[in-house]
Parts: sequence; C-alpha cells; structure tokens
Amino acid sequence: MDIHDIHNISTNCTRTEFVGTAVLDTIGLVISGVDDSLFKKMNVGTQYHCLGLFSSRTGAAGQITAIDDAVKATNTEVLSIELPRDTKGWGGHGNYIVLGGNDVSDVRHAISLALELTNKYAGEVYISESGHLEFAFSASAGPAIHKAFGTPLGEAFGFMAGSPAAIGLVMADNAVKSAAVSITQYMTPNIGTSHSNEVIIAISGDASAVKAAVLEGRQTGLELLIGMGTYPEIPGTPYL
Amino acid sequence: MDIHDIHNISTNCTRTEFVGTAVLDTIGLVISGVDDSLFKKMNVGTQYHCLGLFSSRTGAAGQITAIDDAVKATNTEVLSIELPRDTKGWGGHGNYIVLGGNDVSDVRHAISLALELTNKYAGEVYISESGHLEFAFSASAGPAIHKAFGTPLGEAFGFMAGSPAAIGLVMADNAVKSAAVSITQYMTPNIGTSHSNEVIIAISGDASAVKAAVLEGRQTGLELLIGMGTYPEIPGTPYL
Amino acid sequence: MDIHDIHNISTNCTRTEFVGTAVLDTIGLVISGVDDSLFKKMNVGTQYHCLGLFSSRTGAAGQITAIDDAVKATNTEVLSIELPRDTKGWGGHGNYIVLGGNDVSDVRHAISLALELTNKYAGEVYISESGHLEFAFSASAGPAIHKAFGTPLGEAFGFMAGSPAAIGLVMADNAVKSAAVSITQYMTPNIGTSHSNEVIIAISGDASAVKAAVLEGRQTGLELLIGMGTYPEIPGTPYL
Repeated sequence: MDIHDIHNISTNCTRTEFVGTAVLDTIGLVISGVDDSLFKKMNVGTQYHCLGLFSSRTGAAGQITAIDDAVKATNTEVLSIELPRDTKGWGGHGNYIVLGGNDVSDVRHAISLALELTNKYAGEVYISESGHLEFAFSASAGPAIHKAFGTPLGEAFGFMAGSPAAIGLVMADNAVKSAAVSITQYMTPNIGTSHSNEVIIAISGDASAVKAAVLEGRQTGLELLIGMGTYPEIPGTPYL
Repeated sequence: MDIHDIHNISTNCTRTEFVGTAVLDTIGLVISGVDDSLFKKMNVGTQYHCLGLFSSRTGAAGQITAIDDAVKATNTEVLSIELPRDTKGWGGHGNYIVLGGNDVSDVRHAISLALELTNKYAGEVYISESGHLEFAFSASAGPAIHKAFGTPLGEAFGFMAGSPAAIGLVMADNAVKSAAVSITQYMTPNIGTSHSNEVIIAISGDASAVKAAVLEGRQTGLELLIGMGTYPEIPGTPYL
Repeated sequence: MDIHDIHNISTNCTRTEFVGTAVLDTIGLVISGVDDSLFKKMNVGTQYHCLGLFSSRTGAAGQITAIDDAVKATNTEVLSIELPRDTKGWGGHGNYIVLGGNDVSDVRHAISLALELTNKYAGEVYISESGHLEFAFSASAGPAIHKAFGTPLGEAFGFMAGSPAAIGLVMADNAVKSAAVSITQYMTPNIGTSHSNEVIIAISGDASAVKAAVLEGRQTGLELLIGMGTYPEIPGTPYL
C-alpha cells in the first residue's frame, strides 16, 4: 500500500482478526493461532494458542464486568488483565485483556459478547472538566472480576473510582458505611493503580448491600464532582 | 436519585465533607470519622480518624507549599502525599494529600486554608502547546515540604519542574549554578516521578539564594519553552 | 524579568543551550559543562560533563532512530534513554535522551543532526480519535537503538507500537509471521512501558525481512485503527 492511499482503507474493517468495537474506544480482536515466538514473550501460560483481545482507551471496571459475563457464557478463560494509564487525557485507566480458548469460534463469540455487554456495563462513567467517576456492579463475580479485583467467586461485586483522588476516598467512605460490605481492593495513585489520579475500591457481599453501597458512592461522587463547578458528560448509558 | 436527574444536583455543594475548590481542579474535603475497614487499608497510621483530603488534577509543588503553611498554622499532621500522573493531558503530575487531626474543625480549617493558599502558591504554572513549567518557593519548609521533597525543616525550599524533560534539566543546571543551594531531590521520567515527562529538582539553602535560583530557573525555562514556538498560558497568578 | 512581560521573550530562542526543535514537540539542548552537584544526581557515568539533551512530548522509536544515526556520525555517546508516559493526552510515550561528548561542538552537532533526522524518522506516527500507531526502521542498529531495544549492533531494527493495546498485539503477530525476524523486545501496559496503552515489539534480522515485517504490521495496524471509525492524522511525513 502507498501510505498516501490511507483513505482507501475502509472504516468497515474486514480483517479476520476484527470482531468489533464498543463505546469508550473499545476494540475486540481474535488471533486464531498466535505466532510461537510472540507467544513465548506474552507470559499467558501455554494452554491456548487461540487468543481473544479486548482493550479500551477509557474505563476498566465496566469492561471487566462485561468480559466476566462473556467468559461465564463461553468456553474461554481470562489469561491476563492489564490497566494502562489512559482515559484520553483524563486521570484514569483504560484496559487490555487477553482471553484464551481452544476454539476460535468460542473466543470470537466471547469477545463479541463482551463488546455488546460493554455498551451496557461501561455505562456508569461520568467525565467532567474537573475529573471523572466510574462505577460497576455484578450480582455474581466470575473469573474476570475475581482475577482483577479479588472478589470471591459467586459473591456480588461493586466498584467505584473517583478522580481527583480525594473524591474517590469520600465516595468509598460513604459507600462502606452505608451497607454491610467488605473491601476486596483499595487503590490510590501509588497503590495498585498505574499512577492514576483516583481512589478506587472494589467491594463484595450480599447483592442488595453491594448495590446499595455503589449507589451511595455514586450519589456522593456526583455531588462532589458537580461541586467542582461543571456537570459531567455521560459517554455511555447508566444502568444502575 | 434517578440518574437522569443529574442536573438537579447543585454546583453549590452542601455535603458536610465538602470544604471547597481552588484553581487547577483542586478540591478539599474532610471525613470526620473514617470507616474502620477503609482506614485499615489506607496505611496512614492509626492516630487520626478525622481526615482532611486535598487533591488536584494539575500541579503538585504549589499545592504542597499551601498544605505546608496550612499544617504549620493548625493542629494537624500530613499523613500521605501522592503524585498521580495527571495534568489533564499534559506531561506532569497532580496531587493527592491526606491530613489528620483530632478535631474536625482543625482539619476543616487546615484544608480551607490550603485551598486559599493554593490560589496563591499554585500560581507559578506555565502551560503551552509544547510543554509546561512549574515553580514553588517557601522561605521556611514545614512538615509537608519536608515529607514530599526532603527539605530540612526550617530551611528555604525551592522547586522547579520543566517539560519536555530536557528543559527541566537545563533549568536545574542554570539554577544551581546561579546561587549557593543544595539539591534535595532530583526526579526524571524514570526516577521518582510517576513517569511524567519532566526533570524536577527541589533545592534548599538560604532563602535569598533559593529564591534567586528559582527565578533563574524560571527565566531559563520560559525562554526555552517559548523557544518551542508558542507562549504559555498561566492558569494561576505568578507570585515570585 | 517582570513575569507580566512574558511576551517580551522571543520565540526565536538565543540561549546558548538551545539547539532547535522538531516535530512532535521535540526540543534539543546542550549543556557545555554541567554543574557538579546536579551531575552526581544524574547517574549517567562520570566521563562527560558536556551533555546533549533531547526530548519530545510524543513518540520514541523514531526519535531514538534519529539519535542513533546522529551518534554514529559524531564523536558522542548515548548516556540515558527514558520513556515518559506522555503523547499529549494519547496512550503512549514521549522520550528523554541524554548524550555525552568531550567537545561541545560535537555534542551540538549530534543534537542538531538528531533534530533534523527526527523530522524524517518520526514520520511514521498515526493518531486518530481512538488510538495511535508508531513505526520505525533502521537498516543497521547503532548504540542508541541497541541501548533502548536490545537490537544487536549492526543488525536491522524494526519497531511497531499500537494503541489501544490489543491492536499492537495483532500487528506484532502478523508482522513476525510475515518474515524471518526475531523479537528483541516485547512491551505491554504492565511490561516495560510506563503504563502506556500499547503493545510494542522491536524486531531484528535481515534488513529486507525486517522492513517487510514493519510494513505488514503497519498495514494491519492501519486497517484495525481505521476500523475503529475514524482516519488518523499523520503529524510527520511517512518514510517507509
């Protein structure tokens, strides 16, 4: 290809690796048989040469929740979850997730399902001039949520992140005071994040308690973020 | 709350945790008695359950100088200082600071004072299309500056950061050549920063020497940054 | 200087340290004799007090390729290469490189040459709303490429980075399948990067094989990135 003919490339991608896209600059891809020399560098075990790839510029918890449901519904496994420092100039994370499976159609189906669910589960992202908030909830944690946030399998999972970081801590405090939940993960700019400007907690417990806690955190976070002077944009569709 | 009623939330925040805001997307908050399970995760000692929270999207040294004066003037203590990789898409840091105190009115007063002083001390931020510069000065370092930059208590403190990083090194070189000062901290993308695109130094010594060195660094930095082709915006009010 | 007179500073920088600028917010500077106290902090060996400084907000491989040629053509040495998390709000890296030499005119010439070559070698950067791609190629790796990417001296060097990270892995897979090349470096958000949202590989081997692999990676990457819905901007001039 002459690089000057770049506009000859269609936005309707027909490559075999391409599965699709979703909100928040999310792309889903498959590799039916990964190159051996590359595979050795990847450090994702040796079982699966058929890989599903999923990544976004913005957000992590919603997409991991989507991957979690997708893996539960298909014959696939989560091989790695990484959280780059991204969000297109904002203070948070994106995500990069690798799945494995024995069958390319299983893996493709898992990625396709995760993209579809991302349009739902990544709905709880709020971005203003001053900062951002992210929330997620699942009634029953599967292997992706367990791997990323330490939530016991089968327990309800709640997630909240607030930026600037101080907002995240007050959200967390009000959330855990409001219902009988346990903190399974606690992250700050120096602890567990990729130096994002967030305080993040993941919580577990009874589904109704976890959901109530997330809603309490959301209310707190929205009031504080809006108190910084501007209303947030909501790039997805809130579902909680 | 129905999430569609988000515009019912006022920008005049009335939550008890809310203290106020300042320039550079800075927010100040208090928690009068932090939740025990959250407190255990925070790793900020066990003495104070009443916490003051302070964080910004952009800048660190000016805000830490403001916190320093605020802590000196109140019965509070600095529990942690973290520097997220932020600046709203630019190459630097934001900040996230936790204070503790026995009395909520002391802590609230400290945070309130720090917000007010941030509007002054965070004035030395210069942001152009190509990079940014940040400066700070205090005639007498208190506990916040000591904790963040290793400046001996009571000595004068100077700070300069330049981005792209090469500018920061030339600023540092000219500054330390111009006056009898000591380097108490040296940071680069791989050393001590959260992978920011800066070279940063903190200096100490006699107040007039430190101030002269910071002004020499500022002059150097401005000439180089402007030499990249555009004039910087100054989101605060320079005070040096 | 009264800081209000900032517009009295010319955009035509006349400081002795200033060498020039290049695309992607790149600046080149020299220090003819670095301050001793600063030098000790820098951890760049003790041989050279005359330093060349080079850094950019956006991109790394193209600039390192330019530095590589510049060092080969002059009596200078690469002392350090760091990759900040930058790209002006995008998901990648900038760069910060320190050269040393015995003679200031040698060092100035090396930096000047690197700036000129950056306008060529940093041409393979593609930035869309959704992500970015970066490529580089050299027929013969010198000391800068060797230091940064582990390419054996004298072997051909190829580089490709894709963001969101999933795109980078598919590019890498197709590239290494397309030609007889070796992977000398593999980087992901958690492995080797400054938490950027990229998968990156550096490859080595025979020049024609390496070039073919890079072009295959570029084709793959462009198709996938454009498949996310928008065409990239090309801030430089593609040269491959």
